[in-house]
Amino acid sequence: MYPDRYPRNQWYVAAHSEEVGRTLLDRWLLDEPVVLFRRQEDDKPVALVNRCIHRQMPLSKGRLKDDYIECGYHGILYNSEGRAERIPSQTHVPPACKVTRFPLFERWGLVWIWMGDPDKADESLVPDHHWITDPEWATVRGLLPMKARAQLLNENLLDLSHLEFLHAGSIGTEKIAESPVTADFEGTVVRVARPMYDIDCPPFFTRTMGITGRIDRGQVAEFFAPSFHITHVSAKPTGDPDDSRKCSQKAIHCVTPAKGNTTHYFWCHARDYKIDDAEVTELMQHGIEAVFKQDVAASEAIEEIISSYEPDYPIELNLKVDAGPLQARRLIQRMLDAEKVG
Amino acid sequence: MYPDRYPRNQWYVAAHSEEVGRTLLDRWLLDEPVVLFRRQEDDKPVALVNRCIHRQMPLSKGRLKDDYIECGYHGILYNSEGRAERIPSQTHVPPACKVTRFPLFERWGLVWIWMGDPDKADESLVPDHHWITDPEWATVRGLLPMKARAQLLNENLLDLSHLEFLHAGSIGTEKIAESPVTADFEGTVVRVARPMYDIDCPPFFTRTMGITGRIDRGQVAEFFAPSFHITHVSAKPTGDPDDSRKCSQKAIHCVTPAKGNTTHYFWCHARDYKIDDAEVTELMQHGIEAVFKQDVAASEAIEEIISSYEPDYPIELNLKVDAGPLQARRLIQRMLDAEKVG
Amino acid sequence: MYPDRYPRNQWYVAAHSEEVGRTLLDRWLLDEPVVLFRRQEDDKPVALVNRCIHRQMPLSKGRLKDDYIECGYHGILYNSEGRAERIPSQTHVPPACKVTRFPLFERWGLVWIWMGDPDKADESLVPDHHWITDPEWATVRGLLPMKARAQLLNENLLDLSHLEFLHAGSIGTEKIAESPVTADFEGTVVRVARPMYDIDCPPFFTRTMGITGRIDRGQVAEFFAPSFHITHVSAKPTGDPDDSRKCSQKAIHCVTPAKGNTTHYFWCHARDYKIDDAEVTELMQHGIEAVFKQDVAASEAIEEIISSYEPDYPIELNLKVDAGPLQARRLIQRMLDAEKVG
Repeated sequence: MYPDRYPRNQWYVAAHSEEVGRTLLDRWLLDEPVVLFRRQEDDKPVALVNRCIHRQMPLSKGRLKDDYIECGYHGILYNSEGRAERIPSQTHVPPACKVTRFPLFERWGLVWIWMGDPDKADESLVPDHHWITDPEWATVRGLLPMKARAQLLNENLLDLSHLEFLHAGSIGTEKIAESPVTADFEGTVVRVARPMYDIDCPPFFTRTMGITGRIDRGQVAEFFAPSFHITHVSAKPTGDPDDSRKCSQKAIHCVTPAKGNTTHYFWCHARDYKIDDAEVTELMQHGIEAVFKQDVAASEAIEEIISSYEPDYPIELNLKVDAGPLQARRLIQRMLDAEKVG
Repeated sequence: MYPDRYPRNQWYVAAHSEEVGRTLLDRWLLDEPVVLFRRQEDDKPVALVNRCIHRQMPLSKGRLKDDYIECGYHGILYNSEGRAERIPSQTHVPPACKVTRFPLFERWGLVWIWMGDPDKADESLVPDHHWITDPEWATVRGLLPMKARAQLLNENLLDLSHLEFLHAGSIGTEKIAESPVTADFEGTVVRVARPMYDIDCPPFFTRTMGITGRIDRGQVAEFFAPSFHITHVSAKPTGDPDDSRKCSQKAIHCVTPAKGNTTHYFWCHARDYKIDDAEVTELMQHGIEAVFKQDVAASEAIEEIISSYEPDYPIELNLKVDAGPLQARRLIQRMLDAEKVG
Repeated sequence: MYPDRYPRNQWYVAAHSEEVGRTLLDRWLLDEPVVLFRRQEDDKPVALVNRCIHRQMPLSKGRLKDDYIECGYHGILYNSEGRAERIPSQTHVPPACKVTRFPLFERWGLVWIWMGDPDKADESLVPDHHWITDPEWATVRGLLPMKARAQLLNENLLDLSHLEFLHAGSIGTEKIAESPVTADFEGTVVRVARPMYDIDCPPFFTRTMGITGRIDRGQVAEFFAPSFHITHVSAKPTGDPDDSRKCSQKAIHCVTPAKGNTTHYFWCHARDYKIDDAEVTELMQHGIEAVFKQDVAASEAIEEIISSYEPDYPIELNLKVDAGPLQARRLIQRMLDAEKVG
């Protein structure tokens, strides 16, 4: 069944870069309250636990004074390392007067957080997602709140056969689910591929790519456990020998557990064609968001069912195409087990 | 105290006939999600558990294709027996790919469901309620959602002394509660009778029956455990030897547990007078619903109190008129005990 | 950590006097439903448990007939002692047909309730708060609902160092938190004093007292465990030998647990200057309420954090100024322990 927790010694996306600035940003991540801001000094994002060590007041209710947060209740002044430097009502600042600072770094438009053992936080573990900020690609993005556990979306994103049904009329067409799928596993990565040859061009592709008729469509879903996905999409007219007419897309999905069975769904979508066409960008912004909202709605509908049965989940039946999603569960469970032993 | 569950080897009303058609109807019944629709083939209503065996997606989010439901997530096609006949992403359909179909039948305007052991589902157990569709009677009906456990309404309906107070100004008049009551028990039926002679005609009767002054009023509440009630009501001018001026009503109450402490209250109300008078029908529709909403409001007010004390319910004091309601509790408890043993 | 319950053998404020009249008032107090009304006979307020002994119907849904409450469900008639005097459906009224009447008395504009052992209810335990109705003082008042446990507000009110930060721009000014504080304890009273000499006059004082520039400001917070506070405030121009220009205020705070982690915050605020100035009264009404709402908002923000961690509260760090609040916790814990033993 679904994992009941999420591994902590892993990188998760905490925010889009553009969200973190000089206004204190309050966000629950992995069942912890977190406050985020960007330092004046070096323009770097910072994340502290969002509760003052004194009386648990959310620090996000305070104010930013240069690169310090002043708690809005009793004025304790924390530096960006989380150490108190001033307590207004007394001269002595005890060393215990500090809050957790989470390892954080920013890369290619995303802010990554590590909520486990800081000594294990290795930035090189984060996979390549340079397309988001690459000038050869045009990107749109968004954040969808989801009232469902993260794993429901993780499995949705690894499951390419729902396109025909859940996304009928936009990116789904008939016969998709019948196309053969391969799944391969490599370390903590799951890769599910469904190449489709000589298939109908879906309406949304026609509108944004300008392709009509039959196409060869590539679709590879990569999951980097426990929370990050890249869907590699390509389309070109069937039989067209000219590869220059091939259109590529990279959909980046960051699935971060929030509080209880709620989740933040950060998404980005980059394309390598018509990158200066504002109208296409507008179509992508709304069209892609509409599709991803269908995934959120499906996850929420399932959440409502399964949470009604907890702790006795109803029996599920796995299909052949579930090899990818099931491997995703196994990877997360392994990470959880490793944390328990360690 | 109130039963903490409801017996499953019993018939419950799932819907009014008119609610079940070619649109998938999603309804929680006895803490299970159910999807209902009407088959094209034979016009019969069907009920399946409302979660796909694959990933618990509510089937009601899918679509009806002839007499099949196609799951809206991955397109699994279920026939009206609940057996999958097609899985788009693979050719083999395993026998385990099926969902529970609940015994269901339709009679006299109501759709009855059996959520326990199908082998025990015997349609002859459902009591007579032919008045609903009898052309000699005129019927109005409705469905009230209730945020309270079903038993609060079961007991309300067996308790005829609340009319004077809860329904003052509509069907209640002074001195009702003082009239003698008899209760008799027969198998799983409770019958509470309060004949009232030479009593004021309540305002609502005057408006719809055209009777004024003093009346002889008959009121018999029948409870068919665990969920079905008929209230037999009659009125005629006191001392009038002509029985043709007697007006009769049958109020049918179906109290079906939904999810947690919420309940569906399906009601019908048939009369044998002025059956073609549209104005009276309109008055009944709104006037009866207004009265039944008062019963719902009382049940909800009590639910708010008792659920605040759970699991230690405050002590209750039973009155003599509670013989009927208390027997109702005993019958339901006996049914629950029998299921545990069985 | 915070007390998990509240002592019952204590007086709590149930209402402002003006709230209790001839309309049944429904209010949860210490996790019990209570109904309040004022007797015609002697103009005295009365409190009964707000659930009929018969079927737990809230009596507040019934109606007042002279000094009796008639239950709105089955018409049981309770006198103001809580004893049933009439049951419409039967002639015998059993002695057990009664509801709890809580000791209650009214003094200086407040209605006090005792929800524990009635034999221990001693009115002399309630501290002096005569300013509320003293004609030499002008009073404003209000009731704020709070979605947080009572103790969070109890500690806020004993903590004078938050003024500078939480109430910046109204009654807070710089350097307040740096002024020395003394705390002394006497029986079940905690007294925290922060006299401030030669300090900026806060904007709200200037507007309502007409004082500008530097002032000597007195601030004494008294807590009468477990739920009552008086904040004694005074201000006069620094170095002014004329004591007639001194302005005094008494802020009365009554913090009564409601249901779960919600609380009623009854407040009064009396001043001994410009008592006939309607404009100042208006300013006080809105200005004081705005300040107290900030205290409520801070308590609610903390409640949201700590209730997310229950039962494992995050570690707190106590400061020197917390001597008063910590003593408040100890007093309440002692009261709870005494009730357990007794």
